[in-house]
This record gives sequence, C-alpha cells and structure tokens, in this order.
Amino acid sequence: MKNYIKADEWNIIEEGFDPNLNEISESLFSIGNGHMGQRANFEEAYSGKTLQGNYIAGIYYPDKTRVGWWKNGYPEYFAKVLNAANWIGIDVTIGDEKLDLATCKVLDFKRVLNMREGYLQRTFTAELPSGKRVAVNAKRICSIVDEEAGAIRYSITPLNFSGDIAISAYIDGDIVNKDSNYDEKFWDGVSNEVHDQYAYLTLRTKKTNFEVCTGSRIVVTQDGKEEHPELTPVAKEKFVATAFTINATQGQETAVYKYAVNVSSQNYEPQYLLQACKNVIERVSAKGFDTMLAEQAALWKAKWDESDILIEGDVAAQQGIRFNIFQLCQTYTGKDDRLNIGPKGFTGEKYGGSTYWDTEAYCVPFYLATAPQQVTKNLLIYRYKQLGKAIENAAKLGFHNGAALYPMVTMTGEECHNEWEITFEEIHRNGAIAYAIFNYIRYTGDKDYLNDFGLEVLIAIARFWSQRVNWSEERNKFVMLCITGPNEYENNINNNWYTNTIAYWSIEYAVEAIKYVKSSDPQKYEALIERIAFNEIEETSFWNHISENMYFPVDEKRNIFLQQDGFLDKEIAHVDKIGPADRPLNQHWSWDRILRSCYIKQADVLQGIYFFHDKYDTATIARNYDFYEPLTVHESSLSPCLHAIIASRIGREDDAYKFYLRTSRLDLDSYNNDTEDGLHITSMAGTWMSVVEGFAGMHVKDDRLKFDPFLPGQWKSYAFNITFRNALINIKVNTDGIYLSNKSANSISLNVFDETYDMAPNEVVFAVHKVRV
Amino acid sequence: MKNYIKADEWNIIEEGFDPNLNEISESLFSIGNGHMGQRANFEEAYSGKTLQGNYIAGIYYPDKTRVGWWKNGYPEYFAKVLNAANWIGIDVTIGDEKLDLATCKVLDFKRVLNMREGYLQRTFTAELPSGKRVAVNAKRICSIVDEEAGAIRYSITPLNFSGDIAISAYIDGDIVNKDSNYDEKFWDGVSNEVHDQYAYLTLRTKKTNFEVCTGSRIVVTQDGKEEHPELTPVAKEKFVATAFTINATQGQETAVYKYAVNVSSQNYEPQYLLQACKNVIERVSAKGFDTMLAEQAALWKAKWDESDILIEGDVAAQQGIRFNIFQLCQTYTGKDDRLNIGPKGFTGEKYGGSTYWDTEAYCVPFYLATAPQQVTKNLLIYRYKQLGKAIENAAKLGFHNGAALYPMVTMTGEECHNEWEITFEEIHRNGAIAYAIFNYIRYTGDKDYLNDFGLEVLIAIARFWSQRVNWSEERNKFVMLCITGPNEYENNINNNWYTNTIAYWSIEYAVEAIKYVKSSDPQKYEALIERIAFNEIEETSFWNHISENMYFPVDEKRNIFLQQDGFLDKEIAHVDKIGPADRPLNQHWSWDRILRSCYIKQADVLQGIYFFHDKYDTATIARNYDFYEPLTVHESSLSPCLHAIIASRIGREDDAYKFYLRTSRLDLDSYNNDTEDGLHITSMAGTWMSVVEGFAGMHVKDDRLKFDPFLPGQWKSYAFNITFRNALINIKVNTDGIYLSNKSANSISLNVFDETYDMAPNEVVFAVHKVRV
Repeated sequence: MKNYIKADEWNIIEEGFDPNLNEISESLFSIGNGHMGQRANFEEAYSGKTLQGNYIAGIYYPDKTRVGWWKNGYPEYFAKVLNAANWIGIDVTIGDEKLDLATCKVLDFKRVLNMREGYLQRTFTAELPSGKRVAVNAKRICSIVDEEAGAIRYSITPLNFSGDIAISAYIDGDIVNKDSNYDEKFWDGVSNEVHDQYAYLTLRTKKTNFEVCTGSRIVVTQDGKEEHPELTPVAKEKFVATAFTINATQGQETAVYKYAVNVSSQNYEPQYLLQACKNVIERVSAKGFDTMLAEQAALWKAKWDESDILIEGDVAAQQGIRFNIFQLCQTYTGKDDRLNIGPKGFTGEKYGGSTYWDTEAYCVPFYLATAPQQVTKNLLIYRYKQLGKAIENAAKLGFHNGAALYPMVTMTGEECHNEWEITFEEIHRNGAIAYAIFNYIRYTGDKDYLNDFGLEVLIAIARFWSQRVNWSEERNKFVMLCITGPNEYENNINNNWYTNTIAYWSIEYAVEAIKYVKSSDPQKYEALIERIAFNEIEETSFWNHISENMYFPVDEKRNIFLQQDGFLDKEIAHVDKIGPADRPLNQHWSWDRILRSCYIKQADVLQGIYFFHDKYDTATIARNYDFYEPLTVHESSLSPCLHAIIASRIGREDDAYKFYLRTSRLDLDSYNNDTEDGLHITSMAGTWMSVVEGFAGMHVKDDRLKFDPFLPGQWKSYAFNITFRNALINIKVNTDGIYLSNKSANSISLNVFDETYDMAPNEVVFAVHKVRV
Repeated sequence: MKNYIKADEWNIIEEGFDPNLNEISESLFSIGNGHMGQRANFEEAYSGKTLQGNYIAGIYYPDKTRVGWWKNGYPEYFAKVLNAANWIGIDVTIGDEKLDLATCKVLDFKRVLNMREGYLQRTFTAELPSGKRVAVNAKRICSIVDEEAGAIRYSITPLNFSGDIAISAYIDGDIVNKDSNYDEKFWDGVSNEVHDQYAYLTLRTKKTNFEVCTGSRIVVTQDGKEEHPELTPVAKEKFVATAFTINATQGQETAVYKYAVNVSSQNYEPQYLLQACKNVIERVSAKGFDTMLAEQAALWKAKWDESDILIEGDVAAQQGIRFNIFQLCQTYTGKDDRLNIGPKGFTGEKYGGSTYWDTEAYCVPFYLATAPQQVTKNLLIYRYKQLGKAIENAAKLGFHNGAALYPMVTMTGEECHNEWEITFEEIHRNGAIAYAIFNYIRYTGDKDYLNDFGLEVLIAIARFWSQRVNWSEERNKFVMLCITGPNEYENNINNNWYTNTIAYWSIEYAVEAIKYVKSSDPQKYEALIERIAFNEIEETSFWNHISENMYFPVDEKRNIFLQQDGFLDKEIAHVDKIGPADRPLNQHWSWDRILRSCYIKQADVLQGIYFFHDKYDTATIARNYDFYEPLTVHESSLSPCLHAIIASRIGREDDAYKFYLRTSRLDLDSYNNDTEDGLHITSMAGTWMSVVEGFAGMHVKDDRLKFDPFLPGQWKSYAFNITFRNALINIKVNTDGIYLSNKSANSISLNVFDETYDMAPNEVVFAVHKVRV
C-alpha cells in the first residue's frame, strides 16, 4: 500500500522524485490509445530502477513454455505481450554530463497525467554533478485521433549557465522482455533509414514474423522559433537516432518536438510498411503538436461524455473512478476485432496473452454502457473468429463433434496457459463467453447477432458441456468432475456450483437461441447446421436430458448453494480469524494449506448469483452472501467489485461502500504492492460496475434499463453517463433523490425502483429514494 | 517394447551392434557397486547416440528449480544425481583413424553382463574406413570388494595389418548432465596431476562443493608380457590422460589395464583426497586385474547365496529375476547410512534425487530378506538422520510442534519436488516411513530400534497426521482433505482411503511404540520426550480421539473400501474398454481426462490391503481386487508387482503370473520404451516381491516366517534363499511340493500353510501343496 498520489478530480499527480516509487509511477502514468501504449518511462536516459515498456496491440511472441513437469495437453508456447522499440528516447548531454535523474539532484519534480485531455506531463529541475541546472518540461501523448502516432514536446532550459546541449532523439529496438522465459530477445532488425529530421527502424519478431516500422521526425525550436541545427544521422543494428548540438543561453528554452509512429504488418503488407510509416509521420507532423493536443482533448471530451462518473464530496473516490475509466479507454477502443483487453493493457508484461474471461465477465458491461454498440460487438466477434481454435483446443483434450473450449489465456485463440488445474479445469470461462453473447443482446437488443455469429458459438459451447458432464450412477444425475471454479483457491473439485450452473444455463440458452434463429432466419439456420453437422433432434434432446438431470450441490441445512462437493468437510472459520501476518494467504501459506482451507479467493457461488440474480430472491442472495463473503479473502482484483454489487442488491450499503473503496484505488494506492508490474486493467471495469450496477443498481430486464440506486453516506452525490439503445442518459443520485436526464434526441423509458419514467429527448425527471424496509 | 537380449540364465547378452539400441544397452549393461556406477558406455570414442553416465553415490548438485507457475512452499532446487568424471575413456587411433564404432564397420559385436561374477565384457571386430581390421576385447568391473575402484582390461589386436597404435587412457571431467535445468555444467576443475602411469583429476561441484578425485594407473602388455612404451602425460582444464604409441604386429594382442579410483570429500578431508586416491590406486593395481576379478566373483557368489532366485523351466523368467536382483545389489549395499536407492540407481539421471517412498515400500522387503540386518537398518537410519529436515519441511507448510513430513524426493532430507499436487499432497509417503520401521522390527525382531531411533520418528509422523486431519462438522468425523494417493491419476482428492488408513495406522503404531519404549527403557523414554517436548497425555489423548473418529470412505453397496470421496461419481468402465491407441493414458490423454476417468495408475486401496493384509479376510481382499484391478492401467513400474502379490493371496494364480511377467523383464524388454533413460531400480525389488511374497506367499506373523506357496503352471520349479533372524533358508517349490532347507547353523521354526516345521541346522523338510478349494 502506497499513498503518494495527490488528490485531484481530473489529474493524477506525483510531486517530488522518489526513485523507489518510479516503477509504480511508470505504471500509473502510462498512456495508450488502444493501438499502442507505453509506460511512463523517461525520455532522457535513466540509470535507476525502471521497467521499460512500449507495446503495440496484437504484436506478440510465442515464448517457449517453461514448466516443471510436463503434462499431456500443455501448450508449446505462451504468447507474450512484446516490449517493442522505444520511440520516446531523447538523450540529453550537457558538456560531458548526461542528463540522468539517477545521478542528478532532482528539484521540483512533478508528473501529471491529465485525464480530461489525455496527456502526460513531467516537469523538473535537475542539478548535474557539475552544478549546472536545467529545467525540463516534457509533455507527450499517444494520439487517440491518429492511433499510430505519438508526440512529445521535450524542452530544456539552462538555468545557471549558457552552453552547448547535445541531444539525440532515438528509436531503440534492442530491447528485452523482462518476463522472457529463456532470456531471449524477441526482435530481429530488418532495416533502418535516417536522414534530415527523419529516422525509421523496422524490426521483425522472431517466430511470428510481425514487422513493425517505427519512425520519428524531430523539429527543434528555441524560444518558440524553429531552429535548424545540423542534424547527424545515427544508424546501427536495431537503433536509429537524429542527433544535434545546439547552443542555449541561460534562461533560453530549447524544445524538441518528436513525432513518432508505429505501423505494423498487421495492417500493411511488409513491403509498404516503411512508406506507410512515412505517410503517417508526414500527416501528423504537419498538424503540429498543439493541434494534436487540441484534437486529443476534444476526442477525450467526447469519450468522457459517454463514460464519466462524477462523484461529489470525495475527491479520492472521484480521482479513483476516473483513473479506472481513463485507463480502460486507453486500452481498448473497439475498432479492431483482432484485439482484446490484456489484464495489464499497455502498462506491463505480466500475465502475457491478451484475453482472459475477464473480458466477457467484467469488461463487457463497461463497454456496453459507455461506448458504441460496435465496440462490444467487436469483443464478441473476436471470440467468434477464434471459434475454430477453441474447437481445436477442445479436441486436444479429447472432445469431439465440434465442441469448443475457449482458452484460459490467449492471443490468437490458442491456449497459452500451462497449469493443469487452470488450463484443463477452469472451464467456466466457456460459460462466460456464452453469457457475454446473452448480455450483449440483452443490453443492445441486437438479436441478429445470434443469427450472424452467436448461435454457432453457443452450439459449440453447449456441445462441450454435454461431453464434459458425465452420468453418475451413484447420484442418478449428471455431474461435472475435476473443476477449478472462479475461486482458484480450490482446484480439481467436483461439482462446482458455479460451473454446473453456467454450464446448465449455457445449454438452455443454446436451445433457446436455436429456436430463435430457426424461426427468424430458417435459411441461415439450415446453412449453419449443415456446415457444423449439427443433428438438432439428437443433440438437443440429449442437452435437454442433461438440463433436466443436472446436479447442483446445496447445503440443505443452511439453505444455500454449496460451492462444491465436500465443501462442508472443511473447517469453516471466518476470514477475520486469520492473523494479519498470514495475509495475503497466497504469499504466506503453502498451496495445500490454501486449498484445504475454506477461504475463497474471489466470488464463486456469488459470481453465479451476480450473473443470474433475477432468478434468486433477495433472501436467497443474502443467505449465500452471508455464508460466503465472510470466507472470502478477495485476493483477486476481480473480487471486491462483485461483492460491492451483491451487497448493494441486498441493501448492505456499508459493505458495498467498503468493497468499492478496495477496488477503486487498487492501483493508485498500490493496494496489493504490485502496481510496478503494470495496472489491473480488467478489474478497473469492475470498479465502474461497483458504482453503476452496485450503488445505482443498474440492470436490464425485459428490454428496459432499470435502476435501484442508493447514495453512499460518504458522498454528496454521484452521476454518470450511460448509452442505452441510442439514448444517452445521465443519472445523478444525491440526498434528494435521483435525477435522470435524457441527453439524446431519442425518447426512452426507464425504471427507477418500481416506477416507470418515459423520457422525451432532453427531458429531466426526478425520482425519490426508496425507503428501505 | 524391444526383444533383443539373448536368453541366458546368468548373463545378459547382446549380439550384433545396432546403434538404435545403444542407449538401451548402455542402461541394461550398467555396472555399479553401491559407491559408484556407470552406464555401459564404450571405452573408445563413440560419435553416435549415447548417454554418458558415471555416477558417485551421494554426490549431487542442487539445480535451480524450473517451474511454470511458482507456488508458495516450492523448493528452491532439485537435487540432481551428477554425471561425474568419465574414468573409462581409452581413445584408440590407428594411423590417422580413430576407432569409433559409429564410423567403422562393426563385426561380431557382443556385449555380455556376467551377473554371476559381476563383470561387463564387450568383444567386437571393427573394420576402419581404410579397411584395417582390429579385434577388441574390453572387460571391466566396478569392484564390490574395493568400492572406490574400477578396473578395465582393454585389448586390441590388428587382424590384417601391423603398425603403430596410439592409445590415450583419459579421465574427462568436462561433462554435462543431460537433465540440467539451465544448461549449466555442474563441475569446476580443482587440480590435475599426470606422471608415469598415473593420472589424477580433482573436480569440485558448484554450490555443494563436493570434491572428487579420480585417478588412474595404466599397465600395458603385449601377448601377456608387460611393455613399457614411452608415456606422454596430458593435462588440461578438467582433463588428464596418459598417452602412448605402441607397435603391434598382425595378430598380436596389446592390452591396456586401466585401474581407476574415485574418492570423494564425503569420506576424506579435501586436502587428503589426492593422497587417498593414490593409496587406493596403489593397493588395487598391486592386486592386479585377475585378482580383482577373482575377488569380485567370490563376493558375488556370497551375494547370490543370500539372494538368488532359481527358476526352472523358463530361461527368460530366470534371466529376468536375476537381472533385477543383480541391479539391486549393484545399487545399494547398505554400508553407508548417508546413501539410499535412487529410482535409476547408477544407470541414468532421470528423476534426480536419491530417495522416494519406493525405498520403504518396495526395497525394504528385499534387503530385509536378502542382506544382513544392518543393510535395512541403515536405510531406516538414513531417514532418522533426516528427521530434522522433515520437521523443517513440515514447518514450511504450516505444521508445528515437531510434526514431520518426509520429502517426496530428496538427497539430503530437503524436499526437491515441485508439483503442488505431489509435493504438498502425496503425503502418504510419511506413512511408508513409519511402516518400514514396523516392517523392519517385525522381520528382524530388533525392537531396540524403537528405543534408539524409531520412536522419535513415529512421534513426529503422528504429530503430522494429527495436524493434517481436520474435524468435519458435517460428518462428525476426522477427515483428510486435499490428498494425492499412490494412484497419482487422482489429485487433490478428499479422504483417500489409503492415506486415511496409513495415517490412522501410523498414529496407532506410535501409541503402541510409546508404550513399548516407556516400559522397556523408561530413562530413554523420558530423555526423548523432554528433548522433543512431547506432552504424552495431551498429545496421545488427542491421537486416540482421532483414531476413534477417523473417517474411512466405503461403498456399502459393493462392500468395498472406496478409493476416495466421490469416486463413484465417475463413469466406471474397465480398462479393457480403452482402445490400444489410447494406451498408455499418460502419453495420450490430457491430464484432466485422466483425472476425470476412473482409471488407476498403480495400487492405491490395494496398497493398503497389501500393507495390512492380516486385517482383512480373503473375501474382502477379493472384492476390492475385483473392483479396482480392472480399473488399473499399471502405468507405474511399481504397480504390477503389488497386484501379483494380492492376486496370489486370493488364489488368482493366472493373474499373479501375468503381473509377474509384466514386471520381471520390464527393462530387459524395454517394456515402457524408456529403458534408455536408465533402469527402474526400485521396481526391481517389486519383482523379487512378486515371487517371494506373491508366489511363495512369504510373510511374517507373530515373529514367525510363513509361506503359502503355489507353483505357476509355466514353471517346473522355483527356489530362493532368504535370511531370517540368523537363519539362511532355501525354499524350493516344484510340482511335488515345497522343500525347505535350513542352510545355517541355527534352528528355525517356519510355517507352510497352516503347518509348523521346526528345522534343525542343515535340515531339509518337505511340505505338500495345499489343495485350493
């Protein structure tokens, strides 16, 4: 836990330079645009502790699997997010001294992430060992307007001397991944070109043969006037630079504008890559830095209009929620259906891969409500396009007849994970893929999605479940053995209630979807079932047999769902009985001790109750919450948000707020002491859900958006924007009641508590709080 | 499966050279003496496929753990059996041609492992690319008389030319372990010395700092007469050699005698190591090769007198059983209580470590019956000396109060294994340590062992179980959760019947042992309980509470013990339903598929029934056997032998013989296609058990040795020697009946079936077969 970020509603601010916090700040102040992104590494040289990271979406390296004991079925490689060429580098040398904050006295250091306008700024005064002082002001963006481009304005002002300053603006491709399994470098050099203000470096990934051309153009000004110092081109293996020396008088500001571009062979034929890079460089540098900044601010304004949450009365909460929304928007824009939401986004290497079930279970609700429909649809299409790989993946595990098992971690659809208890057994992820289809259609009303894409996925998933269950003679029921649920502190268990529940639901939903597509588009249906050799009568009658005879573990005494068979054989003791020296358990207890204990890593039964809460009355939800929450250690970043939502639903407002606090500033306060590895991007969506689905109680039922809001006692008000079926709505909750504003040109009808409000365009309505009984 | 070894009662014979079989033969023809050993690599250079292996007992390297996903509690390193300096090397060069069977035409190749006399001989004629032909005869031993020494007689005879032969007898220390986790070399050079006939090389292991000095002396003869060619010393980093050139006329035999010695810092202070090596070299070379051979043969005769099994009517079975006994005797001699029985002995690197529960469960019975009592006692003392480490190991997993968990794999007592489901959960191994103490005392009558060593271990083990169980409110019983049983095709299961059973038994036996020591040696008892802070009343009353309330899963319908909770939720189908393309399962099925299935890797419930068969009537054993054996795939080399014994006990003679066949020639016929990695040493003891405890039904009850023998229909007779409490007994079973010979000077009383036979010294008695009803 750290607490050094200054409170501010729209900015993330660090004041003063503490090298021990640098790697955390590099994560926190990351910028990105869905296409590329980077940690807040310094432009100038830094010999202190740093995790360098520049990432380009979709560019990965299949790192040979490292494993202690090989199990049949393990993947050959783990797809690693690649640290790509460093395009921000600007070396500064004054006399024979290199500007390096690790060797200077650093004064007035300030780092600001301006979330409203989408830029990173760093200012400081450095005193070199010789006593020379310079003021530096570095501002940069990853453009969300020109997604292949970034731009930097780096200015330096001698404060107590006049003299030559040598500057080298470089692109360095000789970089490493810290998490390389075998200490390999993942990039080969292809070509380089440096002339005039321009430098280009093309690299190719080993094995995957992605090519990326990184280019830069520099412009130099002094006191705001463009200068033309003599430029020296530098070109080496995997390195290019534009270098020059310029004389600066005391108090005179020299600014280097560095326009940089990353284009990749994902979007261009390799032979045109260099030209494409040149084109983009010309385009953005012609705009100029100030125009880029202004366009950036304008587009961020539009994004905030769709997605902002405004909290009055609690600056820390306001800063926390905006930080989460900002980072989510920086990570995924939904423009490219080959991309997904990596657990660390563009802020670190850890976990590799790009896609976990986090996307479907945690991120989809956020993008559904805060971005155009196509954004979420592209997340679904991503999985649709990987269906073939999911079928191959299932076949490797012995499944047949087009059964699909989506991977635990993936880049291309192939499984990357290699822990048997996860890779082969944490199969509830398959249910989340089906649930996301349901959730998307429920929110958008886009039932055509079933006809075009959804049904094929749903059938393949239902086929998987129908083979993964087995008939138990002993119970006279279908059971599901050898499972790891969302609570990964139980492995290889039998009849995980959540997995059985989502499997059962997936099958039912597939049957329903078949009926819909068959009746709404019989031709498409016939074409599909022929293509996938679907024997409707035989297969669905077996599925129905499973649905009718599925086993769900329960504790009859407590009248709750039972997390798994045998759970009650454990010693049941609440988390508050564990001493602080033992927390978090995963850093202090051996794995068997964790497994033997009753302690729950993250929502498991409650994950099912969250997904299907309509099916359960409040008393049932409360009984399960009261049994399981006190056993939960919340050692996954995905845990507190779910509990905040469920606590909200059963009127446990204090609990809800407590869990919200735990999730909203997780990274800002480095709650788990791991922010230096990168940000917990996917759980940030959970934070958003805590407010919108938790405090505001937003949900969709029967094609209508409904709210059951409450106002946490610590806040004066909160408000947020939501897009629902062509309407942009603002909801504000304060002590008086609930204000609903229809900010769009379309009418919409909403529910607050049990009341219906029909809202004309631009209408504002007011509802009073419900008195809880 | 291979089948190229020639049938012979006393020899293992390979005729003809097939490079594809070379690595298998290198394993099969391994020689060793309990102190050192080596694969049957060639003396001369060989550029073909080979796994070089020279091993010195107890010398290991802690190789940094390789793991995919780290779990808290994993060990930092895996102790690797080290490939040590190659002491057999004799390079031969004729003209400019190196003798290398990979580049020659090889004629009349024959490799013989003479098990009766304990030597390896290889003869062949090689035609060099130039057409020159030489005959080679290489004979070597690892001396069981002088355990630090080996000796080679390597002769070469020009067949179709006369000329110079250049010979370099070398010791090469620049060797690698094939299974190195990070491709490191494990040895550093310390010193070397070469003069006259002598060469010495001292190496030191990295990290562990073991020093080993390897020395050699060569003597050269022609036509049996010693020659004195000019010797050239060669000394390089980690390499020494004695080289010379000698002229040989066509048909003239030149023989090089190479006496070699390995002494290690385990037995000498490093500063005296070189001198110690010189002393042994002088001593053994003074004896001369023929004397060494004769002494070797004489000592092997004595070993065979103790341990031979004679089978009439089946040469393959005879060869198989002798091969197993021979390799066991080569691996462990019981002279050094710091050593144990590695799963590959001195025949390969695989599995690392030296000690598994195989020792206690499978090897102890063999050494008890075929070697002096001290041999088995030293195996027990080995564990006694590692008790402190076992307590540390348990503490790492959260256990306290002197609870001990012996490691799954170890060299020094520290755990080396790193699969959570094994390392932390396959804890039944702890019970096998307790059982070995019981078994040793039952066989030898040496109850003092409890007073001196045994009780302390038993208390520490009972303490472990008492903390590892937990009270289930649900069942009103003590349960044991998160277990892997001997059947490793189930992981993290609850209430494994075998583990619950051996835990229960261990606790009961500890209580019994406490009573015995307390009454037989109260002073020793008091000293012990003070030293280990044992609160007898409190601890044993809790243990008794556990014993009285332990839960054991059963299937009441079938009236059998249930392997684990939930086993009957599986689809129960017999192994013969699995197609051959799917076998072995562990090479064809993903891990979850194996786990979900009902298929059993090796005896699990039946392991418990084997250990405690006195407690169960034949009908109970048969019901369990009939349920579990058809579900068992026997994919552990330890499986068939146990089933042979249990099948014998319930009169399933055909089954018993079938399982015996599967175990006895496992390596000779490379049944599992893995003999090239080394021999399955520990399962060889199981083969011996199949005959002695299976066919002959040998067991100890009430201080008496009992037999319930039958004769497999395929054999004319079998006979074996057994040492029991100072009596050497020969049992021969043929179609007539059973002949018992007391071959010692002590009287002994034995049971065959239900009859008692009191035998005077040297008396022979006869018993008829029991007619089975």
